[in-house]
Amino acid sequence: MTPDGARPSLHPDRLLPADPGTREVARRVYAEVADLPIISPHGHVPPAWLAQDTPFRDPTSLLITPDHYITRLLHASGVELARLGVGREALSEQEARAAFRVFCQHWPVFRGTPMRLWFETVLGQVFGTELVPSAGTADELYDQIATWIAQDTSRPRALMDTFDIAFLATTDDPCDDLAHHRTLAEDPSFLRRVVPTFRPDRYLEPASAVWVADMHRLGEVSGQDTGSYAGWVAAMEERRAYFKAHGAVSTDHSHRDLGTEPLEPVEAERLYSAALARRISTVDGDRLRRHMVCEMVRMASEDGLTMTLHPAVHRDHHPGTLEAYGADVGADIPISVEVTRALQPALARYGTHPNLTLVVFTIDETVYSRELAPLAGFYPSLHVGVPWWFIDAPDAITRFRAAVTESAGFTRTSGFVDDTRAFLSIPARHDMARRLDSGFLARLIAEHRLTEDEAVETARYLVQTQPREVFGL
Amino acid sequence: MTPDGARPSLHPDRLLPADPGTREVARRVYAEVADLPIISPHGHVPPAWLAQDTPFRDPTSLLITPDHYITRLLHASGVELARLGVGREALSEQEARAAFRVFCQHWPVFRGTPMRLWFETVLGQVFGTELVPSAGTADELYDQIATWIAQDTSRPRALMDTFDIAFLATTDDPCDDLAHHRTLAEDPSFLRRVVPTFRPDRYLEPASAVWVADMHRLGEVSGQDTGSYAGWVAAMEERRAYFKAHGAVSTDHSHRDLGTEPLEPVEAERLYSAALARRISTVDGDRLRRHMVCEMVRMASEDGLTMTLHPAVHRDHHPGTLEAYGADVGADIPISVEVTRALQPALARYGTHPNLTLVVFTIDETVYSRELAPLAGFYPSLHVGVPWWFIDAPDAITRFRAAVTESAGFTRTSGFVDDTRAFLSIPARHDMARRLDSGFLARLIAEHRLTEDEAVETARYLVQTQPREVFGL
Amino acid sequence: MTPDGARPSLHPDRLLPADPGTREVARRVYAEVADLPIISPHGHVPPAWLAQDTPFRDPTSLLITPDHYITRLLHASGVELARLGVGREALSEQEARAAFRVFCQHWPVFRGTPMRLWFETVLGQVFGTELVPSAGTADELYDQIATWIAQDTSRPRALMDTFDIAFLATTDDPCDDLAHHRTLAEDPSFLRRVVPTFRPDRYLEPASAVWVADMHRLGEVSGQDTGSYAGWVAAMEERRAYFKAHGAVSTDHSHRDLGTEPLEPVEAERLYSAALARRISTVDGDRLRRHMVCEMVRMASEDGLTMTLHPAVHRDHHPGTLEAYGADVGADIPISVEVTRALQPALARYGTHPNLTLVVFTIDETVYSRELAPLAGFYPSLHVGVPWWFIDAPDAITRFRAAVTESAGFTRTSGFVDDTRAFLSIPARHDMARRLDSGFLARLIAEHRLTEDEAVETARYLVQTQPREVFGL
Repeated sequence: MTPDGARPSLHPDRLLPADPGTREVARRVYAEVADLPIISPHGHVPPAWLAQDTPFRDPTSLLITPDHYITRLLHASGVELARLGVGREALSEQEARAAFRVFCQHWPVFRGTPMRLWFETVLGQVFGTELVPSAGTADELYDQIATWIAQDTSRPRALMDTFDIAFLATTDDPCDDLAHHRTLAEDPSFLRRVVPTFRPDRYLEPASAVWVADMHRLGEVSGQDTGSYAGWVAAMEERRAYFKAHGAVSTDHSHRDLGTEPLEPVEAERLYSAALARRISTVDGDRLRRHMVCEMVRMASEDGLTMTLHPAVHRDHHPGTLEAYGADVGADIPISVEVTRALQPALARYGTHPNLTLVVFTIDETVYSRELAPLAGFYPSLHVGVPWWFIDAPDAITRFRAAVTESAGFTRTSGFVDDTRAFLSIPARHDMARRLDSGFLARLIAEHRLTEDEAVETARYLVQTQPREVFGL
Repeated sequence: MTPDGARPSLHPDRLLPADPGTREVARRVYAEVADLPIISPHGHVPPAWLAQDTPFRDPTSLLITPDHYITRLLHASGVELARLGVGREALSEQEARAAFRVFCQHWPVFRGTPMRLWFETVLGQVFGTELVPSAGTADELYDQIATWIAQDTSRPRALMDTFDIAFLATTDDPCDDLAHHRTLAEDPSFLRRVVPTFRPDRYLEPASAVWVADMHRLGEVSGQDTGSYAGWVAAMEERRAYFKAHGAVSTDHSHRDLGTEPLEPVEAERLYSAALARRISTVDGDRLRRHMVCEMVRMASEDGLTMTLHPAVHRDHHPGTLEAYGADVGADIPISVEVTRALQPALARYGTHPNLTLVVFTIDETVYSRELAPLAGFYPSLHVGVPWWFIDAPDAITRFRAAVTESAGFTRTSGFVDDTRAFLSIPARHDMARRLDSGFLARLIAEHRLTEDEAVETARYLVQTQPREVFGL
Repeated sequence: MTPDGARPSLHPDRLLPADPGTREVARRVYAEVADLPIISPHGHVPPAWLAQDTPFRDPTSLLITPDHYITRLLHASGVELARLGVGREALSEQEARAAFRVFCQHWPVFRGTPMRLWFETVLGQVFGTELVPSAGTADELYDQIATWIAQDTSRPRALMDTFDIAFLATTDDPCDDLAHHRTLAEDPSFLRRVVPTFRPDRYLEPASAVWVADMHRLGEVSGQDTGSYAGWVAAMEERRAYFKAHGAVSTDHSHRDLGTEPLEPVEAERLYSAALARRISTVDGDRLRRHMVCEMVRMASEDGLTMTLHPAVHRDHHPGTLEAYGADVGADIPISVEVTRALQPALARYGTHPNLTLVVFTIDETVYSRELAPLAGFYPSLHVGVPWWFIDAPDAITRFRAAVTESAGFTRTSGFVDDTRAFLSIPARHDMARRLDSGFLARLIAEHRLTEDEAVETARYLVQTQPREVFGL
């Protein structure tokens, strides 16, 4: 078998439908969007990388250690996270090589997953190597990537051009001074648009252990007295305005549920005071949080920042892993979500406000046809987010389109969001979405549900127009 | 692109599988059922239309204003419902034209939805026009449809013949005197069978604001004393008998959940009295309603009226819309449903009764393989309803067959139910179902799971025999 | 139509994808696994059959009466279970014939179900008949099968060779003395491996009516004092060791939910004592059961027996049927299941233990992509069970692979488990799984997500290596 045969993910027809007639149509639709610039309105690339244009350190810290999609499946395969550098200071050259070798040895466990597709695409299209990861190729591959890293054209800013990323949003703490974003905005030589995203989760969980300290910091940074609930509102509004002034187009929210039930003002103040005194129960913490989320919807209807919601993940499911390695290492597990009742209070108040844009993401696929598409099919403010995290994958994306389109059409979705910290995989991820949407549209053509002209127009709309509209670019 | 190319929904192979071999088989199966008469055992066509054979008023009031599938997606696209005539008295000619223009301008938002398919089929097959809706064609299309409306052959009774609708059930209030149905039954020139359906929801929600007044009306109409629970039972039995005597074959029920837990008689009386005194809590209202639904199952096992259940929709999700436009304008949103435990009390009592037929519909697709198919695969009384409302669409119907057939086969489903008030779309909807079932059967043939003879027999069974059996025609 | 045309399930391409190109690839992959020996690590074949090598009695008691997949759908079709011999002593020849005739008459109700496929395969491949079941063929078919039964080569042990079943696990009560297994193990002429499975459900339901009597028996059999919770633990450990010494490789658990919340030791003792005194509430019975299940996870991490979980079935949904016919006759109905939170307590304690293997099965398909694949994609101990019971069918198995593979790959599943008491259908069931997995892999090849070499390796892995690893053979 030739090397190309061993790397199917580089085939020009990859991810297009198998039926030859449908594939032929899909090729034509895809050709119209394949080379359009990338708009990435939500993700986790560290802004420092771009502000400082830091060279990447080594193949392992670039590709393995920080990618919890990869570390989690290696962990499930019996590899201790420590061996991959998770939760540790920088690895020595020898350790980094060893970790990379472990990954290459376990290459077969990624069969059938999108990690395989993305990684293989990065190997071929970014590094230009023909090697297939294995115990036998690990060292040579490591060296090839290390050589690539050492080139000037491999630094983050150059890659923004190579990848043709026209717009990139990072994810940032409300108390962040956004210095990196200022650096980028003030640099006349940097022509790509990179903006922050306001991510206030920890400031909306009054029962969490760190909340009181966060409130002190929030008070200092915002110049508002966060000793009262009214002060919290003012502080949040100040920080949103600060982010907006620094280019932010959206806020992002991830809590266990989507609840937005508001409290009476006096009850909100009472719970807020109890939380500051560290005397709030978990139940009341949730109640106050739901009230605060509803307040965020109100603010979004006023300042026009798009509000994205990423709910229903049981964070840090394995306490031993949290203790040893910290958060975000692959031990977060989804739970079921409820949307219709949870968002009703906020939608009753603001759902038809012309200035409001909500994007609701889900890992619980059951709500696509049952709740999200019907909601997005009525409320002008609500859009259905594309598949996220565990379901950001070919078959799941196809299921998403099939589940959502029939009651909400194409215009009520979000446009593709890569949501990734794996910077090098961004083009592969957007390309995957374009191929899958082209394939979905091609099937509608084959079934005589759409003309080819309409399909091409829709494919371009999904890549170019929709993210600009939904995120107000 | 030719006009036909721009209207793919009129292609003879529309909605058949893309794979050429499977499509060839599907064509043969479909050809056997394409022209069979339509049996529509559940829907929302106003009986007055047929009794009075009223000409339709104008294109907008015929096609746009009353169709909440269409108005909701336009609303989501930023069109105020008032502009479409929703919740208003009859529109002026100028307003009706303007509303129709808004719809035509928004034609692209329906891409990928069944509304697109149905509308396009109506345009081509009912109106015989080759125009594609757009800002540019809106006025000409409006005029063409207006001309069509003015013809004698466009009146409801003539269309019953043109569409070859052999059986049509309407949906009616238990206190209705069914005068329109009597008119139709007594007219020797009207040869189609049109029957009422008993829809008692509001009489089973004792905590609702209108319930007490309804009880007074029910008492008057039924001649029973509805001052006690026993009187309520007698009144319901009287009205069911009245409906049955006027041709009804089924009753229809739509509540938030499927609960059928019976109460002790003394508790039922106590809650009933509390409700009449307007002193019943929401929780107790639900308890009494579940008891009443179980009573309805008992009555169904006695009088043999098929009982259809359409549960788990959060009605009037947006209060502002309810206030401004009333109910049934597109602001109803599904919630999750539970079947196994909810129906257990009723099924324990009546589930094997030879006279009972239940049809359970769902918008929550998760219960198809998990609960409904297993239940229908054991209880002779329970049939799985075809997809309804938001999921009455090509991909969803295909998912339904794939989810239900493997444990319940074909004989335990309901036969197609269009459930529509969009009279002109009835043939398009039934045709869609026949095409999709033919495609599903063709796949089973292609995978060597069924012979073509069996598939043809099954396709005919689903169109002709099953609705007759399930609805006792 | 030729007889072969009427029995499509014997077509060499059955269950392979319809698209010709993908089918061609699928054929090649399937050819590599078609003839591999069968490993059946979980099922319900009575060990006495093999120990005593009893000839089967008659076609009805062999194929119809004990197969609740078949009796349930006949019951739903209006056939009383008594007519099929369910819940009765052995049927007379005349009754057995009549029951078989009823089945043949109802052959069309199985269209589209796997029961049709399995039965047809058994007819052709085991009995070698060309007859298609119908009223007209029933008697001749009955006679042909009766003739087959009378042959020496039709006895259970001979069939183990004919079917090439290398490994077969039965399901057994913890108090069973495993005499049949001892007989088999001690017989040098019997070369196939048949082992027991420890199934302790009833000993973990302290609120059930039979629990106290069971505790007495457990105490006697284990030689431990089950008068205290500590004694229960010792007794369970003794029986697990006994089973392990007799070849068991796994334990099997089926409760309403997956809860594993442990209690404080003193609370466990208190509830245990209350249960012995028959003074435990249902709620407390569930609490103690969840604690006991967590104890089972602990024991599994110590003795290395693989722990399979088959949760969330509402047993004996129809009380009248339970009373007349007993349990396991087709009246069990699934309910929704929750995994992420339910298993968290056990996984927090033992989830990364190198000695622990859990396999979680589900009939609730919603947890595949949402909970099970993410959990199996992190915890080395947890594997996703293949589809079970109502969803052990072609389309459902394909949905399973599509839902699980993208986040957990192929290595985190269980390998095929037939879970059947229908001994003759075992080869047909394993063949079905091999065909479907080959078809799934072929699609990945067609979409350029996998090479053919990888697909063949994966197909062989799923059939040979995975069950051996997951069940520690």
